[in-house]
Amino acid sequence: MLSANAPLLRNGNQTQLTTIALDAMGSDKSPGPELDGAVFACRNLPVRVLLVGPQDRLAQGISVRSAARRLPIEIVHASEWITMEDKAVAAIRTKRDSSMRVGCKLVREGRAAGFITAGNTGAAMATSKMVLGMISGVDRPALTAVLPTSTGSPCIFLDVGANVDCKPLHLLQFAVMGEMYARSVLNIARPRVGLLSVGEEEGKGNQLTREAYPLLQQAGLNFVGNVEGRDLYNGRADVVVADGFIGNVALKTSEGLARMVRDLLRQSLKSTITAQVGAMLSRRAFDDFKRRLDYSEYGGVPLLGINGACIIGHGSSNARAIYNAIRVTAQFAESGTNARIAEVFANTELPVG
Amino acid sequence: MLSANAPLLRNGNQTQLTTIALDAMGSDKSPGPELDGAVFACRNLPVRVLLVGPQDRLAQGISVRSAARRLPIEIVHASEWITMEDKAVAAIRTKRDSSMRVGCKLVREGRAAGFITAGNTGAAMATSKMVLGMISGVDRPALTAVLPTSTGSPCIFLDVGANVDCKPLHLLQFAVMGEMYARSVLNIARPRVGLLSVGEEEGKGNQLTREAYPLLQQAGLNFVGNVEGRDLYNGRADVVVADGFIGNVALKTSEGLARMVRDLLRQSLKSTITAQVGAMLSRRAFDDFKRRLDYSEYGGVPLLGINGACIIGHGSSNARAIYNAIRVTAQFAESGTNARIAEVFANTELPVG
Repeated sequence: MLSANAPLLRNGNQTQLTTIALDAMGSDKSPGPELDGAVFACRNLPVRVLLVGPQDRLAQGISVRSAARRLPIEIVHASEWITMEDKAVAAIRTKRDSSMRVGCKLVREGRAAGFITAGNTGAAMATSKMVLGMISGVDRPALTAVLPTSTGSPCIFLDVGANVDCKPLHLLQFAVMGEMYARSVLNIARPRVGLLSVGEEEGKGNQLTREAYPLLQQAGLNFVGNVEGRDLYNGRADVVVADGFIGNVALKTSEGLARMVRDLLRQSLKSTITAQVGAMLSRRAFDDFKRRLDYSEYGGVPLLGINGACIIGHGSSNARAIYNAIRVTAQFAESGTNARIAEVFANTELPVG
Repeated sequence: MLSANAPLLRNGNQTQLTTIALDAMGSDKSPGPELDGAVFACRNLPVRVLLVGPQDRLAQGISVRSAARRLPIEIVHASEWITMEDKAVAAIRTKRDSSMRVGCKLVREGRAAGFITAGNTGAAMATSKMVLGMISGVDRPALTAVLPTSTGSPCIFLDVGANVDCKPLHLLQFAVMGEMYARSVLNIARPRVGLLSVGEEEGKGNQLTREAYPLLQQAGLNFVGNVEGRDLYNGRADVVVADGFIGNVALKTSEGLARMVRDLLRQSLKSTITAQVGAMLSRRAFDDFKRRLDYSEYGGVPLLGINGACIIGHGSSNARAIYNAIRVTAQFAESGTNARIAEVFANTELPVG
């Protein structure tokens, strides 16, 4: 999705490389997808990858990938890693040399422009918040998804899971951050911002959205009012804000439906010989279709509000997803979005919570 | 979805007809879809349809449908009707002879076994609640969707929009009603009940779901704990409960994504001649696929908790959707679900709000 604006194609050796710290122990099948994704990224993008994780294991992984040897890939040692089963808070306290923590430190120390992990989302949020801190004026970080729409122009949707039980002010902060993300990364001049609710009229919604509505209206944004679930995919708004519980349910419902649609389609297309021949002839069309819906094409979602470029990938990431997450991270880091968000919060008088 | 268990196929003239009151002025293009849907239903199902709306207009509509003359279709006059633009509360107060109100009265007076409208959802809920009342022990009615899943067995999902800002006790009531619906209409012996949240562990969720969890655990249900958005479509639970705001967002997000998927697929399949030939050959498979996702196949969703069989259809219902809604209403009325729900609430000591 982000590739349309990506200025990251390799352009001879003169190009400055962007250094990305990659949690090599994040994904469900780590470190395989991370190693392959890093190799593919360093071959095709102007990036240098710092693989963060256990030195011996990663060195061995690199040694069996002959392509990796001449690429700008380095290992940064971390003796521990956080698993999906770990409780976020406990893991952060006990695993003080985790690959997540070491990776975030690389960003804090300026040794990497951005950090990416496909690991435990809760732990990644807590770790990045602790190590990198928040942008001044932002109370909570927001996981920010980039959804495809039928118009071809993406929809920025936040928060998709970082915060439950949000207050109206948090939704306002999400709107300001999402709007800036749409401006800087997607190059939309005056992004339309919508508030996810259950009806279009101002009075529709729950207590949270009814209280957030006037705040969004008065914030100087291009606020288009309430939008509904279906508007996430029809291009009615460039940015849609919601409480993290709602956003997470909407995102995961979408994932579940997309998977069921693929299954049903596969079943239907296998039902008769004619359908099978038809499916064979239209294979390219299906590949194109699947690619447009495929999570791994988007790579990962930024955690807006953190004082550093942090991207969180899906636990089930394959090498292609890691590659795309590296691309997105480099692009996000280069875009200066965080600096611009900081500027808005420094210069705008937003209501205080 | 419900057709698998439908005992409503016409079976000679001996069959007792089930009388259904149909709001003829509900859908966006009313009364056309209602008239055609009623004709099709009376031809194919053991039902009698009471068309509720303006006598003259409906009589004219019937006169131009020659098939309607010999079918068990009657007009019940109502001089007013509620539009999608009407505010629910105001409309109920001012339009005292609306087709919705007259239709609900037919159920209250025992002249119809059930009522269906494709009109203004808020007005339909308020009208049915006012005219028919609630089942004793139930605080709020719940709009109950029947979702397709990849396993073929449907998922009962409630509330999808009747109530925002629910309390934990409401979720418990939804669970009890949804469970009984799954038992009586879908013939599932021991339905698995899930609580929609953002993680599977008990501690995950927002304040509402964390408080509702122990209530559901102690209610004697086959409670499978928290489920996530993706589980709505993978068959992990037979019944999923959520606050109406969340449920509505999840349902409408699904509608929006399904529509986008169809658009993308159509675009992809038109992209090359080979793909077009392939699409032609697999047309039946696509029709099958679309049918399985198509809203009009499900017809309408019951409003559980109302003391009477009330089904609400989509405003964009076509004749096929109305036909299916009539089928679902008759099946729901015949199933005795409401009586069984009333029995549960009368005999179980549920916590009081």
